[in-house]
Amino acid sequence: MSKEETYINDLIDFLSIPSISTDAAYEAEVRKGAEWLASDLRNSGMENVEIMETDGHPVVYADWLHQPDKPVFLVYGHYDVQPADPVELWTSAPFHPEIRDGKLFARGATDDKGQVLIHVKAIASLMEEDGELPVNIKLCVEGEEEIASPSLVPFVKEHKDKLACDAVLISDTPMIDEETPAIVTGLRGALAFEMEVATAATDLHSGAYGGAVPNAAHHLVKVLDSFHDESGRVNVEGFYEGVPEVTDELREEMARIPFHEEALKGELGLTSLYGEEGYTPLEQIGLRPTLEFNGITSGYQGAGVKTVIPKVATAKVSCRLTGEQDPSHVFEKIREHVEATAPAGASVTLDKQIEAKAVTVDAGNEYIQKAGKAYEQFYKNRTLYPKEGGSIPIVEVFRNELGAEPVLMGFGLQSENMHAPDEHFHLSNFKRGIQTVKAYYKSFQED
Amino acid sequence: MSKEETYINDLIDFLSIPSISTDAAYEAEVRKGAEWLASDLRNSGMENVEIMETDGHPVVYADWLHQPDKPVFLVYGHYDVQPADPVELWTSAPFHPEIRDGKLFARGATDDKGQVLIHVKAIASLMEEDGELPVNIKLCVEGEEEIASPSLVPFVKEHKDKLACDAVLISDTPMIDEETPAIVTGLRGALAFEMEVATAATDLHSGAYGGAVPNAAHHLVKVLDSFHDESGRVNVEGFYEGVPEVTDELREEMARIPFHEEALKGELGLTSLYGEEGYTPLEQIGLRPTLEFNGITSGYQGAGVKTVIPKVATAKVSCRLTGEQDPSHVFEKIREHVEATAPAGASVTLDKQIEAKAVTVDAGNEYIQKAGKAYEQFYKNRTLYPKEGGSIPIVEVFRNELGAEPVLMGFGLQSENMHAPDEHFHLSNFKRGIQTVKAYYKSFQED
Repeated sequence: MSKEETYINDLIDFLSIPSISTDAAYEAEVRKGAEWLASDLRNSGMENVEIMETDGHPVVYADWLHQPDKPVFLVYGHYDVQPADPVELWTSAPFHPEIRDGKLFARGATDDKGQVLIHVKAIASLMEEDGELPVNIKLCVEGEEEIASPSLVPFVKEHKDKLACDAVLISDTPMIDEETPAIVTGLRGALAFEMEVATAATDLHSGAYGGAVPNAAHHLVKVLDSFHDESGRVNVEGFYEGVPEVTDELREEMARIPFHEEALKGELGLTSLYGEEGYTPLEQIGLRPTLEFNGITSGYQGAGVKTVIPKVATAKVSCRLTGEQDPSHVFEKIREHVEATAPAGASVTLDKQIEAKAVTVDAGNEYIQKAGKAYEQFYKNRTLYPKEGGSIPIVEVFRNELGAEPVLMGFGLQSENMHAPDEHFHLSNFKRGIQTVKAYYKSFQED
Repeated sequence: MSKEETYINDLIDFLSIPSISTDAAYEAEVRKGAEWLASDLRNSGMENVEIMETDGHPVVYADWLHQPDKPVFLVYGHYDVQPADPVELWTSAPFHPEIRDGKLFARGATDDKGQVLIHVKAIASLMEEDGELPVNIKLCVEGEEEIASPSLVPFVKEHKDKLACDAVLISDTPMIDEETPAIVTGLRGALAFEMEVATAATDLHSGAYGGAVPNAAHHLVKVLDSFHDESGRVNVEGFYEGVPEVTDELREEMARIPFHEEALKGELGLTSLYGEEGYTPLEQIGLRPTLEFNGITSGYQGAGVKTVIPKVATAKVSCRLTGEQDPSHVFEKIREHVEATAPAGASVTLDKQIEAKAVTVDAGNEYIQKAGKAYEQFYKNRTLYPKEGGSIPIVEVFRNELGAEPVLMGFGLQSENMHAPDEHFHLSNFKRGIQTVKAYYKSFQED
């Protein structure tokens, strides 16, 4: 078996563990994910491998620190994954990884186990070839990224000395396409909450009472529809406080990123795009905040007809934030909006579940420039430096607490269905990712 | 054991069968319901008991026709029941009937097995006492009322001679309260459909795409919210065609029905009522059409957060119709409204599941007057003649096809949670119902 084949088999093993952090039923599987990773790190030659407890799922730590004159890198990633449902929409089972057309299909393949293992295998390969690493490496892989890293923030604060470093290397963002690498220089913040609208003590018969009593589904719809105006703008007073102006310079920078509307529509199965008026799709995703409905539930969910008036209706809502938007402030503004909007007879409760500020990275520093050059040895096109629509809340914490430069060096593709059925990872990027990371570390050796 | 105790035990047996007509998984149980009823009818002394096949669930038929000079009654009811979910909200299991405080708790207790058995036991009691019945009785109990009687319409048309009668006696409507009987003289029509909004081929990541792509939940909300205006009126052009004006006379008639807003709010757990401006609650329920959301489903339904952009969102919607509103026409108007309202990027499909016209009954005829008097022998208060908000689609068919007078002689109460958890039936009304029906038949003997 070639070294590459062994690495892929290890990734398949790692992906077979359903380490779903949001669902308490999978708690033992999440721990199994941590244990698998710790064992693989020991095999790679990393030292001081530990499974460190938190109030939630554990953090896997390891280090190798024998180059006193070289920089210290902290590799951050996550071994937890999103839920797999709706499971029936997967071509192969989400936790039985399957290779088709050079892609490895499994939940977590691109987000983030495949990218975490790029780092572990780059280290293993360097150790096997040279018996040492060209730089100092610490590794901190958490199990709660998909639930917004509640335990990692106190963990980083508590272990500032242990985690001290010059740069934080993170592979959890997409490239532009299979031949165009990207280092993300902006990430949106996030706010997620659940809203519950309650009316009656029980579901009511729509014949006996319909017309004279409040309907929780109806009232939820009224509140949800009030969140946007006709131009696609979020219609909550104060929501846009702290959002930076989209300057001509920013527009030019965004316009450099290739964007093919027809190809995207085809790939996603859309008949048209839809967004805030006055912005291009890349500006909407990279520079503008959003408020989205992630789930709605109310009333009868079974087959056929049941003419009830639902007593309760819930929506899962999340915002992506930009610039200086403060998630707590946005949440309060939304609460005020809901209180002013909810019709008579409805009691509305909001439960905040995630909050994180947006991040902007300085693209000019050495750590990012060398990463861009490392990519270019293995990919056809030049490295780009886009602003991404997603959120990695912990990036801001690393910068604030450790004073380290974030290097968001991704190997995924947006087409790889992360958070959706048939998530996959291109094995060509797994292999080139390992080479890129090795070249990146070696570029510091030459200084 | 007293005769009454035996009757109650029989009802408990009948209610133990989960004859849920809307769910194909319960098909065998629905048939078991028909078989139980046929057997009980044979024991009661009815003749020509048959389980008659249809394209759906079977009809149970029986007759006793040995009073050539007396009227022929057709007793209609249904042995099918609503689904029991959410099962976790029941105090006792829905198909393990339990008596608490003189009430029998089970799915179908008041709607309609308890009321069907009033008729079977009235017949059994008369046969046991007199060896014969004072009038001619046919009985036709279907298994598809909760799914809008799709097979019964062709069944009635095909068996017009067999079902020929002077009056159709139906016990499937509520009384005013425990001491105030009611014969319903108006029923609203019904239209039910499912609406599906589809956008992308898969659920999408709200970070990677949020802001630039359509969200099926968002688009569904926009369409649903467009169905009503700020005054609670249905905002679909043409919806109110055929709705009768609410005259001063009608308002006076409705005002005669006792209505206690505070008591109703307390009973249903509401902080306020909610309905179309300009009408009292009883007018809203009895005289005005509605459009209600019975269920909404979209996106992530599990615990915690999943930041997806849903690709599909569905709503179960039903209308109550009044006067001459034509359900097919209303459905077409709704379809036109949806097509005009759905935002770009959404494909919307509508699936019609139920349609029935409203019914108005002439309260002056002998069959209704005698029924009113029969009640008054066993209840403290005078019989009232209200208009009800519910729908019994088959009533219109009986009148059109058989030329028979409908007599909507109910023994249920609106507080009995029909279609909701903890459905129950007051045993005092089961007992007095049997006496009332016996007295009603006997009142024709005296002519």
